[in-house]
Amino acid sequence: MFATVMYGPGDVRCEQVDDPKILKPTDAIIKLSATCICGSDLWPYRGLQPTDGPAHMGHEYCGIVVEVGSEVRTVRPGQFVVGSFCLSDNTCPHCKFGFHSSCIQREFMTGAQAPYARVPLADGTLVATAEVPEKHLVPHLLATSDVLGTGWYAADAANVRPGSTVAVVGDGAVGLMGVLAAKEMGAERIIAMSRHKSRQELAREFGATDIVAERGGAGIERVKELTRGVGADSVLECVGTQESMTQAIDSVRPGGSIGYVGVPHGVTFDGQAMFFAQRRMLGGPAPVRRFLPDLMDRVLKGRIKPGKVFDLTLPLADVAEGYRAMDERRAIKTMLTV
Amino acid sequence: MFATVMYGPGDVRCEQVDDPKILKPTDAIIKLSATCICGSDLWPYRGLQPTDGPAHMGHEYCGIVVEVGSEVRTVRPGQFVVGSFCLSDNTCPHCKFGFHSSCIQREFMTGAQAPYARVPLADGTLVATAEVPEKHLVPHLLATSDVLGTGWYAADAANVRPGSTVAVVGDGAVGLMGVLAAKEMGAERIIAMSRHKSRQELAREFGATDIVAERGGAGIERVKELTRGVGADSVLECVGTQESMTQAIDSVRPGGSIGYVGVPHGVTFDGQAMFFAQRRMLGGPAPVRRFLPDLMDRVLKGRIKPGKVFDLTLPLADVAEGYRAMDERRAIKTMLTV
Repeated sequence: MFATVMYGPGDVRCEQVDDPKILKPTDAIIKLSATCICGSDLWPYRGLQPTDGPAHMGHEYCGIVVEVGSEVRTVRPGQFVVGSFCLSDNTCPHCKFGFHSSCIQREFMTGAQAPYARVPLADGTLVATAEVPEKHLVPHLLATSDVLGTGWYAADAANVRPGSTVAVVGDGAVGLMGVLAAKEMGAERIIAMSRHKSRQELAREFGATDIVAERGGAGIERVKELTRGVGADSVLECVGTQESMTQAIDSVRPGGSIGYVGVPHGVTFDGQAMFFAQRRMLGGPAPVRRFLPDLMDRVLKGRIKPGKVFDLTLPLADVAEGYRAMDERRAIKTMLTV
Repeated sequence: MFATVMYGPGDVRCEQVDDPKILKPTDAIIKLSATCICGSDLWPYRGLQPTDGPAHMGHEYCGIVVEVGSEVRTVRPGQFVVGSFCLSDNTCPHCKFGFHSSCIQREFMTGAQAPYARVPLADGTLVATAEVPEKHLVPHLLATSDVLGTGWYAADAANVRPGSTVAVVGDGAVGLMGVLAAKEMGAERIIAMSRHKSRQELAREFGATDIVAERGGAGIERVKELTRGVGADSVLECVGTQESMTQAIDSVRPGGSIGYVGVPHGVTFDGQAMFFAQRRMLGGPAPVRRFLPDLMDRVLKGRIKPGKVFDLTLPLADVAEGYRAMDERRAIKTMLTV
């Protein structure tokens, strides 16, 4: 098959690779219904994360099961499934505690920017729908696999509650999904920090009540103004830089919570400053599996349309252009048809 | 009156000072029923925190109101009161959110190691009992002012719930109060990390089910063993050094919570390490005022005896020996009679 291989920074190709095979009795092979490019794929693409040799890319996926290993019990060929970018057994103590992304057997999905993919730990990872969904639902279901699940976790970790005042730092796809999640969780006020018109509009569509275009100190001041000097109850940090983390910490009220889902690059916290600031912090790779049945249900019922975050759709053969468009911020998120 | 003045590291004296006076219409003057020395008083005593000139010491207090300013409404002369070491108005948005220690008008109490003390923001800070309590209850009520309130906050911030497995890092007075708090909150298993026999015994009396005497990597391993490799649901960090913070972070399970109440000295967190570790963190000066009515009620009902943490009682005139005994770890906590 033809699939996506990253050779190094800026060098992504669609080229012939071996078809995936069952390697362990707990594996499944799926035929992708659609796949996409993640913001986190841009870290190595931009040379900000070391890579060692050509890598099969892609960790967001949904599709039809075509083959399962001998020990797989919960899914079978012909079913439509979605899985998390974190592969987990769903039975270990960490999974049972709701933190599947710290599963004792955790692996990270790879090779999903392709027509077929191997999913390890299939029983624990994959969630099947009752029927094969209509085609128009596929982008929305695909979004639950990572980008929505991650935005949802940011809101969950930031303790968003009915009536909360929430600020979202970062207007990338995850930040926009954070807005949607906060809205679904009943937040009364959702302040999206964004200075790009198209992203501001999407944020409003997903539920943002206020837009703050300023950054840095001015952005913090604006959030304070909008909250009568108090700060937000919850802040979703969806970038991962020191600047965005500072923005998050200084925008939340004492005793408020920060959910941080942008992988921190070069970020440190000073213990004494955090102590006196009294911010509750929880971050990490999202335990999407915990939320997946609920998120898929919301999509299937037509309650949410997270797939709107895909503002560019390309055939897999044009994956290199998909990366370029996201790198240059011409696209929020690229869906790939296979 | 004779009161406690710290001139510099290691130099604490009981000497003649001016009697406290009402300076603002929101002040009260109280006659102390008893007072005590805090673990945090040892930071400047040990030269680990800069001081500028002689300082009137003491921030844990209970006693009888003798005078109030013209605007004080909620307490009156003759009443027995307890207040937090953090002075707060109890009306601002941060107080209403339960974070009195970030009150917009916050001040820190001082000058309470004395027969009389001035309490600013009396209405917001002081909680009166219905009647003047019997003398034997005074040490327990005094403890609610800071040491118990701080241990309680550690358990609250660490999200202790009925059935939780809790580890407490630090066997100082606050750590021991953290054990008591976890017990009261219904923790099933409470692992106290302590290598001092007398403190281990007190920890057991307060509700510890397990004692871990090892420190560093060995201590972490022991907590892991006791929790079947999982880690504790909640860890109370009651020291404030990098070593104790590392112990806390590595002893808690992914998705678990750390409440840190030891003022961090030289502690930093690496953002990416915290991200992948998935620890929920909340620290700060304890919002004791939030808990005070409940804690005083538990004491008055005889349900808890936090005053057992005072293992040395001295007259105020011997305050210097009280500091020495705590500095040399001959005493857990010194109560001063006035």
